[in-house]
Amino acid sequence: MDYETIAVEKSDIGIIITINRPQQRNSINNKLLEEINRVLDQVEEDERCRLVVLAGQPGTFCTGMDFEEFSSLKSQQGTAPLKTAPNPYMATLKRFTLIPRVVIAVVDGQVMAGGVGLAAASDLVIATPRSQFCLSEALWGLLPAMVTPFLVRRVGFQAAYRMTLTTAPVHSREALDMKLVDEISESPFDSVHRLWLRLSKLSVPTLRNLKEYFRKMWLINEAMENIAITEIERLSSDPRVIENISNYVKYGKFPWEGLA
Amino acid sequence: MDYETIAVEKSDIGIIITINRPQQRNSINNKLLEEINRVLDQVEEDERCRLVVLAGQPGTFCTGMDFEEFSSLKSQQGTAPLKTAPNPYMATLKRFTLIPRVVIAVVDGQVMAGGVGLAAASDLVIATPRSQFCLSEALWGLLPAMVTPFLVRRVGFQAAYRMTLTTAPVHSREALDMKLVDEISESPFDSVHRLWLRLSKLSVPTLRNLKEYFRKMWLINEAMENIAITEIERLSSDPRVIENISNYVKYGKFPWEGLA
Amino acid sequence: MDYETIAVEKSDIGIIITINRPQQRNSINNKLLEEINRVLDQVEEDERCRLVVLAGQPGTFCTGMDFEEFSSLKSQQGTAPLKTAPNPYMATLKRFTLIPRVVIAVVDGQVMAGGVGLAAASDLVIATPRSQFCLSEALWGLLPAMVTPFLVRRVGFQAAYRMTLTTAPVHSREALDMKLVDEISESPFDSVHRLWLRLSKLSVPTLRNLKEYFRKMWLINEAMENIAITEIERLSSDPRVIENISNYVKYGKFPWEGLA
Repeated sequence: MDYETIAVEKSDIGIIITINRPQQRNSINNKLLEEINRVLDQVEEDERCRLVVLAGQPGTFCTGMDFEEFSSLKSQQGTAPLKTAPNPYMATLKRFTLIPRVVIAVVDGQVMAGGVGLAAASDLVIATPRSQFCLSEALWGLLPAMVTPFLVRRVGFQAAYRMTLTTAPVHSREALDMKLVDEISESPFDSVHRLWLRLSKLSVPTLRNLKEYFRKMWLINEAMENIAITEIERLSSDPRVIENISNYVKYGKFPWEGLA
Repeated sequence: MDYETIAVEKSDIGIIITINRPQQRNSINNKLLEEINRVLDQVEEDERCRLVVLAGQPGTFCTGMDFEEFSSLKSQQGTAPLKTAPNPYMATLKRFTLIPRVVIAVVDGQVMAGGVGLAAASDLVIATPRSQFCLSEALWGLLPAMVTPFLVRRVGFQAAYRMTLTTAPVHSREALDMKLVDEISESPFDSVHRLWLRLSKLSVPTLRNLKEYFRKMWLINEAMENIAITEIERLSSDPRVIENISNYVKYGKFPWEGLA
Repeated sequence: MDYETIAVEKSDIGIIITINRPQQRNSINNKLLEEINRVLDQVEEDERCRLVVLAGQPGTFCTGMDFEEFSSLKSQQGTAPLKTAPNPYMATLKRFTLIPRVVIAVVDGQVMAGGVGLAAASDLVIATPRSQFCLSEALWGLLPAMVTPFLVRRVGFQAAYRMTLTTAPVHSREALDMKLVDEISESPFDSVHRLWLRLSKLSVPTLRNLKEYFRKMWLINEAMENIAITEIERLSSDPRVIENISNYVKYGKFPWEGLA
């Protein structure tokens, strides 16, 4: 099978999905989400495949939404009405938390905006020492609305709130302290192999029970997911936000530079 | 404008409110809450003012409820019926979390009881190394009922519960580890300036969206706020509690000394 | 009074319950839960007794459910219908969190599965440096369903989830960082005495208020407790789980060895 945005590698212990858009700094577009989900469909058909590793490029795990695609879509849409659920990004994060497989994010380097959500919704995150995580959305007048439920679940309220408010990068050591990262490793794939020695003892039905059960033990439910989707649709239809992003795509100009 | 309980300083980046009751160890009375809210009213009228810093005296940020005022009010009230919502202290904490501005608590030294709530409800807390936080309420037969929702939000259940149960002081380093403090600094106002370099890029509408959205991503809602207000009214009308505090105000005697 | 499964020692500051099933590696059977609750009944009749310490054997705090008793009960029951609430283990954890006394777990050595719940539901946990905590349930096709609400409350979602998923032991230092342990001490009973200097100043009515109030400030309610009980009944009636445990009890064979 052929993919445009990812590389897929089957190994004896599972499958590795590598985000493969280096020219676009591994940003997220609809094609990427569709292709990740196509792989997950295949995984779900094979009970022997119990491990999904999500990786990025050296130095760049994922930098969030593809601004060029966003800007181009918005200029086509004009005043189109808001999309409603389902949202493919939110659906993917939710799927990570419910698919009866182990999902491990292997992070090396930059993780921004929506990329933070891909990591936060993974079962486990292994990061290299040079990794850093940044929620830059508020700088554009956006919010990491769909990331927030999964980030709060992982790191608690204040750490998620602080990252969103300050938009400052969080380095691997601090990310480990706040449990955004589960392990720091110079060779994260070796860590995956070591973890798999224990994880491989869990059956697919047990993984299904575990993930469904933990969902009932926390705040995230469909109502909260819909609040998240509604908020991101609202914000990304705000003319100021569209203009902020368009000015960046066209002229490389940041919103606060426009204030001068 | 003149204030009895605070000093207010406008700078080019925002406003600094300094709690100014050194004779009363910077305790909280109704006048203080009223004056803080009067400043916040002014802030909300000025879109250019996007930063509110709350500071205390050197060595004493805030020591919680003013026991003398409490005791005097209670002796006047006699068997007056319970007050109902709104409660001015609870309303102030809630306002910190919703006002579309950045609220930073600059803490140096002692923070006790209700003072912990003022910090916990702030967006960010910067503390000097000598700072310490203590929830002493249970010693008097009270609870930090209105502080709890905001403290649990910031530090998680167990850290908030342990502080309340043990009534033991938490020093700056431990407070940082539990995220009650966001940064330790020998010169916290320099830290505010440094943080502002990024924070200043956020617009008022974005701050409003951010704060309203994060409220929906956590446990605190009006029902929980009313439980808090009802509980503090119930406890502070308990004759044993009133006597405990009155004995301290009049004779400097602690409740457990009365047991001897 | 005579006990089969525990030793009980009254001191001037409270009562020490020592789990006393060294031959069964201090596992939990129904008799143990019944006897712990009998002691708590006595404690509740004596307002002067305000401290309950739960301890284990040197090197083994508690290793969770007694597999031999479970296996024997299951082979007797045959296809008996599921038990419904109340569940004595869940009721005991809940009682720890609501009894108007201070409950301190003194942990030395191994804490597994249901043993983690006894610690997590205690007000405070003091552990020796050699202690370690492990949720091994998923290896058997079970989940720590009744432990989870109390563990999430104590350590947050991700740390509880990671322990359940990886089934890997957490050592005392990491347990302290994640707040599963409140203090590490070479001589935990000395720590209890030191803590008691402050804790002893809290009255029984204050402890009752405190515990009832904090329950309202968090996610656990009767609905969640019933979800937990229903899930554990469902899983422990699963023929695969029963067979996994029976094979271990009879032949010392682990589930994944059966896959070969």
